[in-house]
Amino acid sequence: MQLNKDHILTENKKVEQHHTDQFNFLSGQLDKQDKDVHTILRKLANFQVAIPSWALGAGGTRFGRFGFFGEPASLEQKIEDVGVLHALTKTAGAISLHIPWDIPQDYNAIKELASANDLVFDAVNSNTFQDQKNAKESYRFGSLSNLNASVREQAVQHNIDVIKIGEKLGSKSLTVWLADGANFAGQRNFQSALTHTENSLKSIYSALPEDWKMFIEYKPYEPNFYSTVIQDWGTSFMLANACGEKAYTLVDLGHHLPNTNIEQIVSTLMLKGKLGGFHFNDSKYGDDDSTVGSVKPYALFLIFNELVYGMENNPQNPDLAWMIDASHNIKDPLEDLLQSLEAIQEAYAKALLVDQEELQAAQSRNDVTLCQEILQNAYRTDVRPLLAQARALSGGAIDPLKSYRSLRIREGLIKERGMNSVATGL
Amino acid sequence: MQLNKDHILTENKKVEQHHTDQFNFLSGQLDKQDKDVHTILRKLANFQVAIPSWALGAGGTRFGRFGFFGEPASLEQKIEDVGVLHALTKTAGAISLHIPWDIPQDYNAIKELASANDLVFDAVNSNTFQDQKNAKESYRFGSLSNLNASVREQAVQHNIDVIKIGEKLGSKSLTVWLADGANFAGQRNFQSALTHTENSLKSIYSALPEDWKMFIEYKPYEPNFYSTVIQDWGTSFMLANACGEKAYTLVDLGHHLPNTNIEQIVSTLMLKGKLGGFHFNDSKYGDDDSTVGSVKPYALFLIFNELVYGMENNPQNPDLAWMIDASHNIKDPLEDLLQSLEAIQEAYAKALLVDQEELQAAQSRNDVTLCQEILQNAYRTDVRPLLAQARALSGGAIDPLKSYRSLRIREGLIKERGMNSVATGL
Amino acid sequence: MQLNKDHILTENKKVEQHHTDQFNFLSGQLDKQDKDVHTILRKLANFQVAIPSWALGAGGTRFGRFGFFGEPASLEQKIEDVGVLHALTKTAGAISLHIPWDIPQDYNAIKELASANDLVFDAVNSNTFQDQKNAKESYRFGSLSNLNASVREQAVQHNIDVIKIGEKLGSKSLTVWLADGANFAGQRNFQSALTHTENSLKSIYSALPEDWKMFIEYKPYEPNFYSTVIQDWGTSFMLANACGEKAYTLVDLGHHLPNTNIEQIVSTLMLKGKLGGFHFNDSKYGDDDSTVGSVKPYALFLIFNELVYGMENNPQNPDLAWMIDASHNIKDPLEDLLQSLEAIQEAYAKALLVDQEELQAAQSRNDVTLCQEILQNAYRTDVRPLLAQARALSGGAIDPLKSYRSLRIREGLIKERGMNSVATGL
Amino acid sequence: MQLNKDHILTENKKVEQHHTDQFNFLSGQLDKQDKDVHTILRKLANFQVAIPSWALGAGGTRFGRFGFFGEPASLEQKIEDVGVLHALTKTAGAISLHIPWDIPQDYNAIKELASANDLVFDAVNSNTFQDQKNAKESYRFGSLSNLNASVREQAVQHNIDVIKIGEKLGSKSLTVWLADGANFAGQRNFQSALTHTENSLKSIYSALPEDWKMFIEYKPYEPNFYSTVIQDWGTSFMLANACGEKAYTLVDLGHHLPNTNIEQIVSTLMLKGKLGGFHFNDSKYGDDDSTVGSVKPYALFLIFNELVYGMENNPQNPDLAWMIDASHNIKDPLEDLLQSLEAIQEAYAKALLVDQEELQAAQSRNDVTLCQEILQNAYRTDVRPLLAQARALSGGAIDPLKSYRSLRIREGLIKERGMNSVATGL
Repeated sequence: MQLNKDHILTENKKVEQHHTDQFNFLSGQLDKQDKDVHTILRKLANFQVAIPSWALGAGGTRFGRFGFFGEPASLEQKIEDVGVLHALTKTAGAISLHIPWDIPQDYNAIKELASANDLVFDAVNSNTFQDQKNAKESYRFGSLSNLNASVREQAVQHNIDVIKIGEKLGSKSLTVWLADGANFAGQRNFQSALTHTENSLKSIYSALPEDWKMFIEYKPYEPNFYSTVIQDWGTSFMLANACGEKAYTLVDLGHHLPNTNIEQIVSTLMLKGKLGGFHFNDSKYGDDDSTVGSVKPYALFLIFNELVYGMENNPQNPDLAWMIDASHNIKDPLEDLLQSLEAIQEAYAKALLVDQEELQAAQSRNDVTLCQEILQNAYRTDVRPLLAQARALSGGAIDPLKSYRSLRIREGLIKERGMNSVATGL
Repeated sequence: MQLNKDHILTENKKVEQHHTDQFNFLSGQLDKQDKDVHTILRKLANFQVAIPSWALGAGGTRFGRFGFFGEPASLEQKIEDVGVLHALTKTAGAISLHIPWDIPQDYNAIKELASANDLVFDAVNSNTFQDQKNAKESYRFGSLSNLNASVREQAVQHNIDVIKIGEKLGSKSLTVWLADGANFAGQRNFQSALTHTENSLKSIYSALPEDWKMFIEYKPYEPNFYSTVIQDWGTSFMLANACGEKAYTLVDLGHHLPNTNIEQIVSTLMLKGKLGGFHFNDSKYGDDDSTVGSVKPYALFLIFNELVYGMENNPQNPDLAWMIDASHNIKDPLEDLLQSLEAIQEAYAKALLVDQEELQAAQSRNDVTLCQEILQNAYRTDVRPLLAQARALSGGAIDPLKSYRSLRIREGLIKERGMNSVATGL
Repeated sequence: MQLNKDHILTENKKVEQHHTDQFNFLSGQLDKQDKDVHTILRKLANFQVAIPSWALGAGGTRFGRFGFFGEPASLEQKIEDVGVLHALTKTAGAISLHIPWDIPQDYNAIKELASANDLVFDAVNSNTFQDQKNAKESYRFGSLSNLNASVREQAVQHNIDVIKIGEKLGSKSLTVWLADGANFAGQRNFQSALTHTENSLKSIYSALPEDWKMFIEYKPYEPNFYSTVIQDWGTSFMLANACGEKAYTLVDLGHHLPNTNIEQIVSTLMLKGKLGGFHFNDSKYGDDDSTVGSVKPYALFLIFNELVYGMENNPQNPDLAWMIDASHNIKDPLEDLLQSLEAIQEAYAKALLVDQEELQAAQSRNDVTLCQEILQNAYRTDVRPLLAQARALSGGAIDPLKSYRSLRIREGLIKERGMNSVATGL
Repeated sequence: MQLNKDHILTENKKVEQHHTDQFNFLSGQLDKQDKDVHTILRKLANFQVAIPSWALGAGGTRFGRFGFFGEPASLEQKIEDVGVLHALTKTAGAISLHIPWDIPQDYNAIKELASANDLVFDAVNSNTFQDQKNAKESYRFGSLSNLNASVREQAVQHNIDVIKIGEKLGSKSLTVWLADGANFAGQRNFQSALTHTENSLKSIYSALPEDWKMFIEYKPYEPNFYSTVIQDWGTSFMLANACGEKAYTLVDLGHHLPNTNIEQIVSTLMLKGKLGGFHFNDSKYGDDDSTVGSVKPYALFLIFNELVYGMENNPQNPDLAWMIDASHNIKDPLEDLLQSLEAIQEAYAKALLVDQEELQAAQSRNDVTLCQEILQNAYRTDVRPLLAQARALSGGAIDPLKSYRSLRIREGLIKERGMNSVATGL
């Protein structure tokens, strides 16, 4: 199922006048504040977020999973789903594959399909937290950190295999999320686990193509409930430094202890040139993987405020890899992703409205009240007309979610795939 | 120092055109969504938040306090400060006194001063968490829960004295924040502490005038670090039920364990007709008492969404007492309070924009995506023109903070009071 | 596989002398402190903890599950496993069934098997958090709280069916863990969800046999990540009161927000006569369901201190239902349960050592230092000889875990059941 | 007030027989487990913990402070208090001064007094979180991180002054706890704050004598409630690396977000040779500064398990500076410190009982059950007779707390100092 551009144009017609009124008014207001609306629209249009292949079916919890209808049952269908998102939003122009769930059969066909959907292949993701059928070694007691050299070798080799698959598709980065850790105190020697991990990562790193990056995720807990080898940004940063200049830390919003100041971590990593990528989601309790912006949108804005600052002021930090990493337990996954994409663009647009010079001036006077006013003035602005305008200019939908429903896309997918198709993955 | 109305009008003139443009545009947009702007403006104008007398000077932490300039050194000056806030915002029409920090010398003079500032006296607050000079008994080991009957009697009597002071001023409610608890496991018998507390509260309750209410706060920790007698809403609710129908639970936003779903507590209490009052502040870590809306504005909106729902649908619950309870450690306290008042009104206005019928319809279809859209549509709306309009119509400032600075109010206060005046209280 | 008593005796012989030395020394020491060792031994022997039928196979997380070998594949095999635990420890004399995972085919045969293993049937557990094959209605959007009356009726009827199954087996209580809630703000109306839940629980309650109890669990989050209908003890307590005197709150140690003072909740509920049961486990982050006592053994002791106090002083509270509710992700489930049983008995024994009179006297003098000393003196005592003695006197193993390994029980189970048998359940 | 050795001997006589019985039995048991009791006793005797000068008076919270009786009002009296602790326990042989609260008038006299009490001067602590009378610049908006160069210079100079004072006393290390941060989002630019901090620390470092170390503390929040410049071990570690080889990270147990795995941090830092010191306390909610071991004694044991491992296996890490950093809000500070010292020695002794070889063997077989058994076997052992024996052999009290009371030391101090003396400091 591919979205016809005419469909989107027809949808846009319905809301065009309303949108134009809103955009013009907001644009006029921003002009008076000396904001360069044109530049903001361009930045919004250029901001592309990867969709992970595993997020297109229903997720679940350890207590079970309620399936959704018309889930993509193959890599091809996953690409089509991302194509739908991108056609509507013009901001989801990449897909991030998870190996072994998404190994292509025919690389050329897959690349052509992606290309036809205007998609590129973002970071590839390895999986050493589950045992694969017929695998020689089990990851029950860890993978890259395992005491057993043979397990480590299998896990390293898997990562190298993932790189090779990524190379064939045009990916330029590998994301390593290492679930290794311990469920009980005493189970593992921390130093041995960390040393093995460092060495394993170095082995993977040495197989990295020249123009690739390696992203090292961190997470304090889950699926291990006592300790995780790469428990925080400090550990990831230390490991990235040990590996070399192509290794970076990746921040997943849900991978922090309660109350962590994430924007400060982002800022520190960019100062040090070591922030590689970002996984978006939201959470209230743990790694809930909820829709982006559905719980703490102001926190997301504050993070984007640092990202925007860093992108302007930290040439030492490379371009970032952006990805949504959410789980869709009860909503239509595509609708959920549309909401996440909107929330990301919203936070980005608001951050772009922050007057950095004025802020710096207020900071230099320790005018704390005014500093807060400057941030809140940007945050309180209703930027939805900017997002719609950026999309419309790129050929996307003014209102993606309404168009998705109006065009009865899910119904079409169900017709194609059947009610009970099941997405590969978790 | 009293604010002259002409000053405010002069200030408003400067921004009138800009405001009118914005209000008219927003108003037009809301009309199209069938929102009754007039009603919303009326509700905003009627919404009055009490200012606690202890919030007008600089706060601090256990590590010290950095004083602010021109702090109010007497009850009269505190009333003047609240008068300034109310003149600017028309939403701070009440003051909440803390006894023994604010015992009036001349009740008539105090009442006249309040009246001249268009202020009423909201809930009176007792203090049994500190020892007062020359007090017979110490609260080191608790007050209403103390094992020693003589201490309990002193604490009960203090609360009754507070009621009497409140009566003379026209207050209609007593707020009991009980810091009692234990710093160490084993220090107190939980059941004895709870039973003594219940009996002490009943004694206070029995001295409550017919048309008064008693508010029982809860808090999980601080200043006690092992247990607090009234540790959560469940305990407060149980005690309020034990006392009688004039006893209610009071919710302070900062008095919860990490990640608590506060809006659900609010909703439950209103369903049961037992929510009495609300203390506004914000926090990232503990009971930080930060500026309202400065950390989690979306959470505040969700809470207001339940409050608005309850005010419409729960006649069993009485009108609520609203108060700010924040600490101003580094900002000008009056500026900080202006920001808090704005954030409260903003959350209220956004909650008023939620289309409750549409929401209920979406809920009835389990259309989770749409439910979220409805809330976020209201939340994303920039309601500042509504707040400004409501204020302007009531004779307040279109932009209170700018006017406060433009009118050089703090400078005036410093001239009157001197640089180093110190507010009574913490 | 049934454990032969002679085997245990033979095992005990190996360590008898060592044990006797230790027990005699400890016993002598306790005598000097005026502790009644005989009574303590009797209480330990009488303390029986139910094993849930779902805890006998490997658990997992949303990221997958690593199976264990020789898992029980039928209700009969689950009973045999609990039989092994009870034979070794003499403290696991009950099994708690989960319906529909454990519906007996032949009730008489099952009862005879249980009886042969010296086991009774503890609380039966309903499941309305997963959809069962061929179920008419789905619980995707809730069960007892569902907006749809037909779903609620199905869920109520399921609970009634569970009661009927329990009656045939001799159970005397029903545990309701309600996962209902919302993943997103706005998804459900809190008041409607709570009211429906109350009414559904009342319907179930009305089907409760005269001599039964109903236990209502609470939990702040998971599997729902925004709100849970019965989020805390206050809500459970309110619902239990609404249902009637046979309804009680059940405390699961893992079902609390970070830093909750659980022992205070226990104490309050016993004071009010509303604590019905207890689910043991341990956790560091969320509802980790780790081995009892493996993370915070002192917290467990403090809880037992309140339980012991309540059992002595609160005749208004009924006898409690004790159960382990842990998940065994990487250990042999039976070994893990042996460790949990030991930790429970240890905490209980230490709590029995607390000199309640001395403690009360110290509390009455506010001698905080001494209060802490009294608790820590009990806690620091190595009570393992007491547990071993209580077991030995009842015919159990002096060292259950060593005997389990020495007798090669897991190997026997694998031989019987095959390597890859899979337990029914999660 | 100096404790006479004869007094302690007399006290010991009262409990000698009881102690000897217990020690002999335990010693025999440990012999059978091949534990080298003699070595353990020697290590316990050598383990010395510094007492901070500010912990000898009552602490408080932002809500107030309840003073204690007979507090030390001068540096001399503080040294006497630590002398009492050391005489009783023989494990508190150092005092850690806080400047400017403890600036000596007469260095020789102070050193002689310390020497007479068998005390050395441990790390000196600077204070740039409070304004001192007549200070030129204010730390309201930060010290080492301040935007204003003049403030930074003052703060750097203060640290250098502290070093100089320390040199005169024989200290060999400086502890920098930097409270700098922000109360509100936007208040400070993170990168500027971090860069200024790094440069300020380097300036201090360059003034460090050759044989000194600099310890850099971290803390996530309080007294700042939005961000703290050195928020976690990763930031401290990065700064220590930037400063040089004499700079180390210092871990304070209370300075972590909820649920942090502290032992893993300890282990990582020792592996990297960068753990410099340790501040002991305990906490349930935030930085509660409760008595060591009064909340989570098992967590303390797990931390000591890593410390013991590191001290044996990480020659790259220097000897550690040990200090108690607790606040005594309602207990007699000296009693509280005696309880803390006991808890520290207990955790250390238990960690020394862990059979590291056996543990490593179990880990190498992934025998998770056994790993847990090994730790718990050590933890469950009642090691109090070992502590008492180590003290007795060194001339200390078998039961320090009982002796403290029996000798009526507090009464003596009150007689000397008066009831209402107030300790300098917080």
